[in-house]
Amino acid sequence: MNDQFTNPGLKHSQLDHSSLPVIPLKIISTGAALPPNCVTSSSLDERFNKAAGYIEKRSGITHRFHATYEASQAALAVEALNDALTRQNIAPDSIDLLISASAISVQALPCSAAHILQQSNLPEGTAGFDINASCISFITALQVAASLLNTGTYHRIAIVSADLASRGIDWDHEESSLIFGDGAACAIVEKGDGRSGILSYSLETYTKGIDLCEIRAGGTRCNPRAGIRDSDFLFHMDGKKLFRYASALIEDYFERLLRSSGLTLSDIATVVPHQASYLSLEHMRKRLGVSSEALIDIYRFRGNQVAASIPSALHEAFLQNRYQEGHPMMLIGTAAGLSFGGMVLLP
Amino acid sequence: MNDQFTNPGLKHSQLDHSSLPVIPLKIISTGAALPPNCVTSSSLDERFNKAAGYIEKRSGITHRFHATYEASQAALAVEALNDALTRQNIAPDSIDLLISASAISVQALPCSAAHILQQSNLPEGTAGFDINASCISFITALQVAASLLNTGTYHRIAIVSADLASRGIDWDHEESSLIFGDGAACAIVEKGDGRSGILSYSLETYTKGIDLCEIRAGGTRCNPRAGIRDSDFLFHMDGKKLFRYASALIEDYFERLLRSSGLTLSDIATVVPHQASYLSLEHMRKRLGVSSEALIDIYRFRGNQVAASIPSALHEAFLQNRYQEGHPMMLIGTAAGLSFGGMVLLP
Repeated sequence: MNDQFTNPGLKHSQLDHSSLPVIPLKIISTGAALPPNCVTSSSLDERFNKAAGYIEKRSGITHRFHATYEASQAALAVEALNDALTRQNIAPDSIDLLISASAISVQALPCSAAHILQQSNLPEGTAGFDINASCISFITALQVAASLLNTGTYHRIAIVSADLASRGIDWDHEESSLIFGDGAACAIVEKGDGRSGILSYSLETYTKGIDLCEIRAGGTRCNPRAGIRDSDFLFHMDGKKLFRYASALIEDYFERLLRSSGLTLSDIATVVPHQASYLSLEHMRKRLGVSSEALIDIYRFRGNQVAASIPSALHEAFLQNRYQEGHPMMLIGTAAGLSFGGMVLLP
Repeated sequence: MNDQFTNPGLKHSQLDHSSLPVIPLKIISTGAALPPNCVTSSSLDERFNKAAGYIEKRSGITHRFHATYEASQAALAVEALNDALTRQNIAPDSIDLLISASAISVQALPCSAAHILQQSNLPEGTAGFDINASCISFITALQVAASLLNTGTYHRIAIVSADLASRGIDWDHEESSLIFGDGAACAIVEKGDGRSGILSYSLETYTKGIDLCEIRAGGTRCNPRAGIRDSDFLFHMDGKKLFRYASALIEDYFERLLRSSGLTLSDIATVVPHQASYLSLEHMRKRLGVSSEALIDIYRFRGNQVAASIPSALHEAFLQNRYQEGHPMMLIGTAAGLSFGGMVLLP
C-alpha cells in the first residue's frame, strides 16, 4: 500500500501503523445537481443599485444558483442521487438505505427521505430517514452510514443533501443575502475491504451560539398557534458574532480532530470544508494553515449551499480525482447550533 | 442464562443458538415527561356539544395531555432526559451524544438537538443531532445508536423524542383531532457486555402513502415564497385510507421482522407498539396475534404522541419491570411516509 502514497508530506512509517481506518468505509460514487437559474453577482449589483463589481467583492462569489419558488427540494435531491448512480452505473435497487442529510426539511411531516424516495426510482419499500446536524449533516450522516454498514444493517447507502437556501433569504439583510446558493449532492457508500475508512470523526455543539444563525419557523416554536411572522421564515444571521465565536473555538477543535486521526496537517492531501463564507475559507487557509492546493474551494461559483456544500465540494474532489487510496482527506465545517463537525478519511 | 427465561412460549434450545444479539446494546435507563394540562374526553364532549361519553367511545381515549401554545418542545424533551438521568443516577457529563428523535422539529434551523442541549445541563460541546423517520424515529435512532456504540464512536447515548402534536391539530377534522396527545420520552443506552442487544431491525418506506398523513408547512414546500395557508400547519390525515394501506402491508412486514430475529411470536415477551390509534392496537392484537398481556398499551391515557409514543410505551415497560434479561421485546410501528419500523431486542 505504501507505494500508493504520493503526497510528499506523508509520513509513511506513521501511516503504516496508526492510519488503519478505525471504521471501514468506501465512497463508491458521488454526484451533484444545481437548479437551472444562475444568479450572477453583477445581476445583483443592478438589482440593488450597486456599483459594478460591488457584490462580487463583498461576497467573494461570481455566481450562485437559485431555484424558482415552485421548484422541489426533493426533485433536486433526486437529480444528485441519479447523477451519483449513473456515474458508476449503480443499480437503483442495490441501494438499501437512503439518508436525507439536509439542514432544512421539505415539510414538517413526513421526513424528507420519504419525499426523495417518492420521486426517485428506488424500489417501493426502500428504507429512508433524515439526519440533521444543520450545515454539517453530511459529515454526521457519513459516520452514521459507516456505523450501520459495519453492523451489517445495510450494504450500500446513498446519502443526499439538498438545500434551497434561496427560499429563506432575507433580501433586506445585505450580508447574508449575498452568500447563499441552492444545490444538492450525493455520496454512495459501502463498507469496502477495510483498507479505506474513517480515521477520526468529531461533532461538538456549543449552544451559546444557537441564535446566531437560525430560521425560527418550521416547527413547534413559530406557527399560527404559537405566533408567527413572515420574517420567521427567513435566515437570521449575525455573521460577525458567529465568525468571532467560531474562530475562538475552531483551532482547538481542529487540533483535537487531527490528533485523534493519528495524522498531522501535512499528511492531509485534501481538505473539503463547508463553504460557509469567503471569510471562513480564508480563516481555514491562514489561521489553520491549510494550503490552497489542499483546499477544495467551490464557494466562488456556488456560494454557501448550507448542508449541500460539503458533499458538493466532495463531489468536486472526486471530479479532480483526489479521492485516491492512501491520500488522507479531511471534511470539516461549522454549522448553526453552533456546531463543529469533522472527519479524517483514508480513501 | 436459560433459567432467566420464564416466558412459557420460549424455545430455549433455539434461543441458545440463534438469539445472540446481532448488535450489542443495553438500555440503562428510560424517562418520560408530560405537559401539565390534562384534556379529558369528557371536556371535549362539552367543547364539541357531544353526548357524554361520545369522544371517549369514538377515540378510545379517556384523557391526553396538551401543552399550552407557549410551551417549549425542547423544555419537555429536557424533562424526559432529566427523568432518565435521575432514575439511574447518571451523571449528565457521562452522556457523549444526544440524539433528538422527534417527528416534528422545534424550528427549521438549527436542529432540535441543539435546542435540547441548550436547555439541558449536559456540558457545552456535547455532540447532538436529529434523526427523523416520522413517528418511528425512536426505533431508527436506537439502531443508529447501537451502531455508533459498536464502532466506538460514542459510549453512552441519550435518545429523546418529544412531540407537541396539539400545535398542529385540525379541530375541524373530528377523527384526527381526538387522537393526539403531547409528550416526551428518553432512553439512555450503552453497548453493554454483548449479552443484550438487537436481534433484528427493519425500516421500510412505501411512498404511495406519502400524502395520507402529513403537515405540509415547515420547510421548503410551503412558506411565504412558495405559497402557504394556515391549514398547511395542521395534520392532514386520511385515517381510513392510511389504515387500509398499512393493513395490507403490515402482516408481511411483521413476519419478515420476526423471521430475521430468529424468534417466533410466542418468544416475544413484550411488544411495545406505536400508539397510533385504537384501531391500530386492536389490529395488532387480533390480526397479528399479539396477546393483550404482551402488548404495552398506554393509548387510553396518552393518545397518539407521534414520535414520543414508542419511547413512552418503552418507559412504561421499564416501570412494569418488563425489560428483563432473556425476555425478548419487540418495538414496532407505522409512520407517516408510509413507513414501517420494528426491532426485536434481547434485554
